[in-house]
Amino acid sequence: MNALEMLKKINAMAEFNRWCGIEVAVVESGVVEIEMPWRSEVGQYAGYLHAGLIGALIDTACGFAAATVAGPHLLAANFSVNCLRPAVGQKFIARARVVKPGKTQVFTACDLFAVDSQGEKLVVNGQTLLTVLAA
Amino acid sequence: MNALEMLKKINAMAEFNRWCGIEVAVVESGVVEIEMPWRSEVGQYAGYLHAGLIGALIDTACGFAAATVAGPHLLAANFSVNCLRPAVGQKFIARARVVKPGKTQVFTACDLFAVDSQGEKLVVNGQTLLTVLAA
Amino acid sequence: MNALEMLKKINAMAEFNRWCGIEVAVVESGVVEIEMPWRSEVGQYAGYLHAGLIGALIDTACGFAAATVAGPHLLAANFSVNCLRPAVGQKFIARARVVKPGKTQVFTACDLFAVDSQGEKLVVNGQTLLTVLAA
Amino acid sequence: MNALEMLKKINAMAEFNRWCGIEVAVVESGVVEIEMPWRSEVGQYAGYLHAGLIGALIDTACGFAAATVAGPHLLAANFSVNCLRPAVGQKFIARARVVKPGKTQVFTACDLFAVDSQGEKLVVNGQTLLTVLAA
Repeated sequence: MNALEMLKKINAMAEFNRWCGIEVAVVESGVVEIEMPWRSEVGQYAGYLHAGLIGALIDTACGFAAATVAGPHLLAANFSVNCLRPAVGQKFIARARVVKPGKTQVFTACDLFAVDSQGEKLVVNGQTLLTVLAA
Repeated sequence: MNALEMLKKINAMAEFNRWCGIEVAVVESGVVEIEMPWRSEVGQYAGYLHAGLIGALIDTACGFAAATVAGPHLLAANFSVNCLRPAVGQKFIARARVVKPGKTQVFTACDLFAVDSQGEKLVVNGQTLLTVLAA
Repeated sequence: MNALEMLKKINAMAEFNRWCGIEVAVVESGVVEIEMPWRSEVGQYAGYLHAGLIGALIDTACGFAAATVAGPHLLAANFSVNCLRPAVGQKFIARARVVKPGKTQVFTACDLFAVDSQGEKLVVNGQTLLTVLAA
Repeated sequence: MNALEMLKKINAMAEFNRWCGIEVAVVESGVVEIEMPWRSEVGQYAGYLHAGLIGALIDTACGFAAATVAGPHLLAANFSVNCLRPAVGQKFIARARVVKPGKTQVFTACDLFAVDSQGEKLVVNGQTLLTVLAA
């Protein structure tokens, strides 16, 4: 099973990811891109993307990027998220990359873009530190 | 409208909070407690609470705590989350408090507890920095 | 060698801590308090405590608190710091505690207080995640 | 006074920066590079660069990058730092950039490199959120 298949399978196993409509779009070694369409159920009180979904996209993309170099047995230990602009769009794309792989921990970073008819706009950036679980 | 009513109303306006089943349990000046029941739709691939929901609970509780001192016009600028233990339970309680109020930004902190028949266990802690929007 | 002696020895081994004038004041299991006097060399351009020293105090206090439960072979993996108020005082006290010990990582938190003739004021809070190095 | 001169002047006003030997190397709109030589006074107990100095370099470089777009009246509200590898070298270079400018807050990011005879190595990355002070 290659990395793309592995991640699509893990994504399908997470009920919350299915509910969100998260799709795995791009998978390379250390780099992953996922997408999620906007719908009103993912909004906060003012109609922006809810911070929970922001966190979910950052965490999922970072975890998947880490899995391409360290395998799937990972848990997020810390994530830090900066909300640069209100997250408003028809679709959201999270692009994550491994900053530093390791045997026990993997450092990753992610940019989240909102997409509408005008194109893409960077709305959030974040960092996730994942712990590699003993097999 | 008192603070409890204001927060219940904001909570009901957020479609994602309704989907999650988040309830506002305790509201005092600078202190808020919210709850969410476990169900499989909020799980990640291994059946723990998904990091997106962890982020949603931390962010919602912190935002509500900030709203008790600064009103509802707030946006999270940064949140940092530490996942101390796998988040497994029948119910989750997020307890947030204002660490430092201010005219332009409000600093908050939150502890997230998993509850099962054995009692409560601290599983996550986090910090959220919110920006007060001009009226 | 008890924990207080171990930490005083480690503190004395760090040249930067000696330059800062950091002293270990209180040591209990999972709890540490350190102090540093103000002098102009630790200031930033406006005369407040420099963020580097803020980071140093948070990191040192958290690392020492972690060492009381996990021994001295630790490296900070992540630290996140919130600057609540300008850090101005005659002395600074950092109080750190272990939030969650573990075999491979230790989660800690710290409050930093500025002290002057009026008493103590909370100026910064932070979180540090430390990795336990293999012996 | 151009941005390079402004930042060299601010750097010279900070006593701690002078003690560290921090030099402003590159200044463009939204981008700054600073350098600091290794010497034993900046070490922690094992001879690596002390986390306080890591914080100082990240914070200083991010603050200077923000000042190129928002002027010098800024305070760090939050910084989050990931220590990717032990910071060991003869010289350290911090390269910061503005991720998102704004009227009230500026988001920045920074990479810290250790330099020795083998070349440069990325050892730390971080994010700083700065608040623009009212004039």
